[in-house]
Amino acid sequence: MNFLEERIVKDGVVKEGNVLKVDSFLNHQMDIKLLNQMGAEFKRRFADKPINKILTIEASGIGIACIAAQHFDVPVVFAKKSQSINLDGDVYVAEVESFTHKCRNHVIVGQKFLTPDDHVLIIDDFLANGCALQGLIQIVQSAGATVEGIGIAIEKGFQSGGRIIRNLGYQLESLAIVDGMDAETGHIEFRSQEKDREEAAEESANSVSRSSTLD
Amino acid sequence: MNFLEERIVKDGVVKEGNVLKVDSFLNHQMDIKLLNQMGAEFKRRFADKPINKILTIEASGIGIACIAAQHFDVPVVFAKKSQSINLDGDVYVAEVESFTHKCRNHVIVGQKFLTPDDHVLIIDDFLANGCALQGLIQIVQSAGATVEGIGIAIEKGFQSGGRIIRNLGYQLESLAIVDGMDAETGHIEFRSQEKDREEAAEESANSVSRSSTLD
Repeated sequence: MNFLEERIVKDGVVKEGNVLKVDSFLNHQMDIKLLNQMGAEFKRRFADKPINKILTIEASGIGIACIAAQHFDVPVVFAKKSQSINLDGDVYVAEVESFTHKCRNHVIVGQKFLTPDDHVLIIDDFLANGCALQGLIQIVQSAGATVEGIGIAIEKGFQSGGRIIRNLGYQLESLAIVDGMDAETGHIEFRSQEKDREEAAEESANSVSRSSTLD
Repeated sequence: MNFLEERIVKDGVVKEGNVLKVDSFLNHQMDIKLLNQMGAEFKRRFADKPINKILTIEASGIGIACIAAQHFDVPVVFAKKSQSINLDGDVYVAEVESFTHKCRNHVIVGQKFLTPDDHVLIIDDFLANGCALQGLIQIVQSAGATVEGIGIAIEKGFQSGGRIIRNLGYQLESLAIVDGMDAETGHIEFRSQEKDREEAAEESANSVSRSSTLD
């Protein structure tokens, strides 16, 4: 287990309905030293990417993104969530569905903060079905900017978001991938990150060979 | 002018209705190096306080609070805003009025994240009428914790929030206090921080002499 998986086992709480509460260290109270370790790990995983901006979404992504930004020496932009659109000036907007709150929200970024010159690392705390993330990707694309990668703290591997985003060809790095949880025993099953990398390498090799076939 | 006032003059935009837009470096796009300077300055101003926790409020306070927390070596808790109260578990709630959005909101913090042992520095990006801040103070008091101080990036000195909070006896440190703005010329008038300190010292002396009279 890596440092984040260890912390989830120590302080996370599994609740009925596949809910994992990490509010004592990640998204209500925030352990800044842990966030700093996460930032260093994101930097390691995206070391070869020409990232010049981090994009996240309010509210719980902001702390992680700001601490990570120190490792990349770049500014952070956070997308705003709103049911209505009333930011003044020109904005990029994506409509996303929230399963948690059973409603549709707008994700909004001021146009002047994303340009075709931007090479963006998207950071968020959780990835489940990936709706918010797809909204952020859509906004980066609307700006003509480049998504260099996506860094997530905790991915719910048993939901479809991660698979969809990886299938789209993005480098998605989740520091902990939860493949299953048991509210009765409190047991949390993590995906082996090494296995994950091997699979990714294999998929990438397959895709290369497919491309070769197509050529 | 200090570093933040200089930045406001350089990149802030004054709009009609006493609106100061600082979204290019503070509360939409965030300059993390600037946030780090602000954190160091908060540490200098609250150096003698036994702070063990920083409390802020979503969304734009979170980045400032997280970077500042590195200078204090403490965790951050961010209060959540909600029109309804549906966090599970026991929470502290304060009702606050939002002048910007013309509505009433609830400010919510999980009870387990604030205890009587906590010595809290409250941090936020803006102080105008002080409603959100009063909600945060109320929550710290509900928990039996101590407000050791309040650190604000930009205070609108022509609104009443700062005066009310200082009159209540709190150490309120605003890195930039805007006493007036002109949307036509773009001119921003800052309060001299030295003058401010002298006045505070004088008031404190008066209050001591008043107390002596009362004794």
